[in-house]
Amino acid sequence: MIILKLGGGLLTDKEEEFSLKEDVLERVAGEIKEGARGEIIIVHGGGSFGHPLAKRYALQDGFKDERQLEGVVRTRAAMEEFNRAVVDALLGAGLRAVGLQPSACITCRGREIDRFETAGLEGFLKLGIIPVLYGDVVVDDKLGFCILSGDRIIARLAGVLGPERIILGVDVDGVFTGDPKRGEGSLVEEVNPGNLPHLLDNLGALDNDVTGGMKGKVLELAALAHEGHGSQIVNAAVPGRLKKALLGEAVKGTWIAPGNYEGVF
Amino acid sequence: MIILKLGGGLLTDKEEEFSLKEDVLERVAGEIKEGARGEIIIVHGGGSFGHPLAKRYALQDGFKDERQLEGVVRTRAAMEEFNRAVVDALLGAGLRAVGLQPSACITCRGREIDRFETAGLEGFLKLGIIPVLYGDVVVDDKLGFCILSGDRIIARLAGVLGPERIILGVDVDGVFTGDPKRGEGSLVEEVNPGNLPHLLDNLGALDNDVTGGMKGKVLELAALAHEGHGSQIVNAAVPGRLKKALLGEAVKGTWIAPGNYEGVF
Repeated sequence: MIILKLGGGLLTDKEEEFSLKEDVLERVAGEIKEGARGEIIIVHGGGSFGHPLAKRYALQDGFKDERQLEGVVRTRAAMEEFNRAVVDALLGAGLRAVGLQPSACITCRGREIDRFETAGLEGFLKLGIIPVLYGDVVVDDKLGFCILSGDRIIARLAGVLGPERIILGVDVDGVFTGDPKRGEGSLVEEVNPGNLPHLLDNLGALDNDVTGGMKGKVLELAALAHEGHGSQIVNAAVPGRLKKALLGEAVKGTWIAPGNYEGVF
Repeated sequence: MIILKLGGGLLTDKEEEFSLKEDVLERVAGEIKEGARGEIIIVHGGGSFGHPLAKRYALQDGFKDERQLEGVVRTRAAMEEFNRAVVDALLGAGLRAVGLQPSACITCRGREIDRFETAGLEGFLKLGIIPVLYGDVVVDDKLGFCILSGDRIIARLAGVLGPERIILGVDVDGVFTGDPKRGEGSLVEEVNPGNLPHLLDNLGALDNDVTGGMKGKVLELAALAHEGHGSQIVNAAVPGRLKKALLGEAVKGTWIAPGNYEGVF
């Protein structure tokens, strides 16, 4: 089994609300069709469908006042629209895929996943159908609701399902020591318990995103690596690279190596 | 709490695939806005989005061959599109609603609901948000997949959540002794353990529908009535009637009376 995360920034233009990169999505769907063997679960981020709304209504803070509920229902609707587009692209590429709504099967408690009913998801997998999940606004027993990132979903799924591989398709070459979009820093080919602390210091100064950006991503992946699940970050915006990664061929990117990360966070 | 079922035949033209009755949907959403007080859960049927596809791919038989999987993913996509339209109409009427995917939180075993994770649904209710579920194709531990009707979902929800009232909005005045669409038979104002056996004989000869039509509906509702949950079938195609029913006013329709239905089925 492969768990594939597709970054929101890969599939949407983060500068413009509800802007799908249709050409990228279509190509990525084609590469999944060509590269995927066996069971695969796809999780995509919120991109410009989820993040601007979530930020505007301060959904990451949980329930503070009634007006945020407008943001909850609008964010859910927008994420469903985004998910529909991703599933449609996969169907268009000749794959069998179904959307799978996180807020229907997951609840949190203090932003941590509390309950996750995976029976439906596992059943679709067994049928040879690709479940497609996404970052979503979900019910939180303590906060009322919270934002659950796609990265957190894959971390939990990895723990429950024990995939052979975890691949994160994003729009940069991997983890950098600076901001790659400004041409700063160099690619980190491997993250491990030795270099993570220094990296986190660098990343902390960089991005700002409701779900934590690259720092949040690396922290989630390091926690996963601590549990024995290594993961691979690749630039899916470069044609052919995601397909190669899916086929198990060597590609440029960052490998988050399994290891003992205790005390590193 | 009110559980409201909206029939697929009420909201779509069953003769034409994927045909939404937009005017009816908009009016119904408005009546819900005007009539609903307190917590409400909405469940809608498949109508011409779900039934023709489910029939074409024989989804009610469960997994028989690979080609049906095309039907599974297409039915799921079509039902999401239908659900999206229903949720959008509710939002348009000024209500707060979110779609809630049955196949993400429910699995069956031999067509009976086996697991139903309701934590997300209950959390949305507590926030004052209306969860909108629907008849769906769901994973079945024995059959691979099966069709789960909206009627079966409300039956289970009623058992778990104990609503004050259950209302079924359809496009006929209620249960008839004949086919009301052909002007046959008379309206049955109350279904009870005394008149049910004779009614079932009549209904059995009438309709043919992947989810069992009116006979299936009455059987589900009688099982529910046996558990102490009475329900009300009203004609939501007649302007104003659904609103009155929601407000608790007397309206034309069929009341499925609570009682001991043992041995009747």
